[in-house]
Amino acid sequence: MHTLPPHRRLLLLTEGQLGVFTAKTAASLLRYRAADVVAVLDSAAAGTDVRAAVPWAPPVPIIASVSDAAPLHPDALYVGIAPVGGALPPEMRAHIRAALAAGLDVISGLHEFLADDAELADLAARSGARLFDVRRPPAPRVVASARARDTRCRRVLTVGTDCNVGKMVTALELTAAARRAGRAAEFAATGQTGIMIAGRGVCVDACVADFAAGAIETLVLASADADVCFIEGQGSIGHPGFSPVTLALLHGACPHALVLVHQLGRTHYRAPPFTPLPAWRELIRAYEHTAALVHPARVVGVALNTVGHSDDEARAATAALEAELRLPVQDPVREGCDRLLAAVGA
Amino acid sequence: MHTLPPHRRLLLLTEGQLGVFTAKTAASLLRYRAADVVAVLDSAAAGTDVRAAVPWAPPVPIIASVSDAAPLHPDALYVGIAPVGGALPPEMRAHIRAALAAGLDVISGLHEFLADDAELADLAARSGARLFDVRRPPAPRVVASARARDTRCRRVLTVGTDCNVGKMVTALELTAAARRAGRAAEFAATGQTGIMIAGRGVCVDACVADFAAGAIETLVLASADADVCFIEGQGSIGHPGFSPVTLALLHGACPHALVLVHQLGRTHYRAPPFTPLPAWRELIRAYEHTAALVHPARVVGVALNTVGHSDDEARAATAALEAELRLPVQDPVREGCDRLLAAVGA
Repeated sequence: MHTLPPHRRLLLLTEGQLGVFTAKTAASLLRYRAADVVAVLDSAAAGTDVRAAVPWAPPVPIIASVSDAAPLHPDALYVGIAPVGGALPPEMRAHIRAALAAGLDVISGLHEFLADDAELADLAARSGARLFDVRRPPAPRVVASARARDTRCRRVLTVGTDCNVGKMVTALELTAAARRAGRAAEFAATGQTGIMIAGRGVCVDACVADFAAGAIETLVLASADADVCFIEGQGSIGHPGFSPVTLALLHGACPHALVLVHQLGRTHYRAPPFTPLPAWRELIRAYEHTAALVHPARVVGVALNTVGHSDDEARAATAALEAELRLPVQDPVREGCDRLLAAVGA
Repeated sequence: MHTLPPHRRLLLLTEGQLGVFTAKTAASLLRYRAADVVAVLDSAAAGTDVRAAVPWAPPVPIIASVSDAAPLHPDALYVGIAPVGGALPPEMRAHIRAALAAGLDVISGLHEFLADDAELADLAARSGARLFDVRRPPAPRVVASARARDTRCRRVLTVGTDCNVGKMVTALELTAAARRAGRAAEFAATGQTGIMIAGRGVCVDACVADFAAGAIETLVLASADADVCFIEGQGSIGHPGFSPVTLALLHGACPHALVLVHQLGRTHYRAPPFTPLPAWRELIRAYEHTAALVHPARVVGVALNTVGHSDDEARAATAALEAELRLPVQDPVREGCDRLLAAVGA
């Protein structure tokens, strides 16, 4: 598991890519760590209003260089993108060099590990800055043995119809709602952005296949004494490329309950082979039958991501899906998640 | 994918561990590459009859040192064990050093990569010997996109009730039977021993989770023009630790048919948590429902490993399971696999 220092003055690097989808990590940090962000670093957008690109952002400045950030006293640079392939865009390199030279910690979720880059590691060593590659697999390597079954907390996993539908957001919103209701609730981060928000976690998609479920088991055991642990899902059990990551979560976490997450209007996988998503019934059946081989878990509700739709459209879609599946359906961002929280039995 | 040179004079290293279960890799090479093995290297067993340890072995000598092998003109040393954790036993190191110094290629399936060991790499460089770590993940990293669906060959995957039940043996026996029947049949190796037998393949359990299904897809595409491709299974979809590896195979290979492999008498997982195996129906249901999310595949037969049982016991168990499941059941080693081959529809 990775644990990050408690940075409180973040500089978010998006160089040329600021936007809700293009800089997904930055956009999420602007939502869930709004109070900790002092500026966005993006020379292409410098001086413009951050809320033109990310509607929910706090009114932080967009600056063009690390030196421009000096008056804001940042304590870390967070790489704010999650590109396919996970390579460092060349245009970000100068900013990272400048941050390290200035003594700022740099936190990255790329597949390309910055700490393995001789120039960057040398700059960090000289200034005392620290490099954190949150996607680096944890050591020691652990083979899962279903020990998560024995934890006292209620374990709830978000699962999806596809990648990028809102599994992390659903788990975060459920965690916040449970805390407001007085429960000792933990959020277990399993991806780079979740780790940057929660300050700890493990990137399951970067683990060697033999040890991916073991990494999740270790993570869940660390929250064993909570009342409820909401585990961030990844991928989809029907996704041709990423289903092994999803199953590592299902069998590593041994959840009691599953919340299925879907984006309204999405009919096809957003990545190759771009084929139609499986039917709801088939997907739910596969999740439940596969989970039950290690620990029984039912899909207890659906988190419907209705972004881009009107209130009327969202309401109609929610009602139709509830009637079809006979399960509570809510958009956690638009409507909150009181009914989903009740359904998970925490 | 790894491709090994066509070695024809193998020295099998088992130092102190010669036996069917303790040196599983050597035991399989003694079965499937019997004509290529010139000696077993094991100082603890030197001079004894190899068939006392491995009943099906050819009558090769057991020798105590690499220099004793000189008259046999070996062309490679194959590390013959597959220990949990995958580290190199210290007592094997001197033999590997001697082999490299003598110019022999060394082939290893350990998680600990020999080519990354400075001393061994240096010895190899000086003598011109080559080091092959067949568990090293392939490059480039590929995200699967269900392209295996489009190959013309019939794709058959062996799946298991547990690890170590006979999935590789079943796939090899089916491949041989199909070839005897005049079919252009390929064996796709997905583990270290399978690669050492077939000369090429990929270790799916050592791939990063995001790219494990992609490695299998690449492997299957390489056999696209065969009549039938038998893909070696790994783990079990119900195994708490290794199920992600199994799902990488199920979704990466897009099989048409599944052959379920079980060891007669095994009731519990052989590795932690040592819990009961799932019921047949639940396991078959999970395999089929999960496969169907990418490509439909039915369990068409059961390969029953009856090792250690009498002919009468094997016959009774086979008949009982056939009646229960209404599927053909055969032990490919004891009885051959003509009925399983008919069932896969190749």
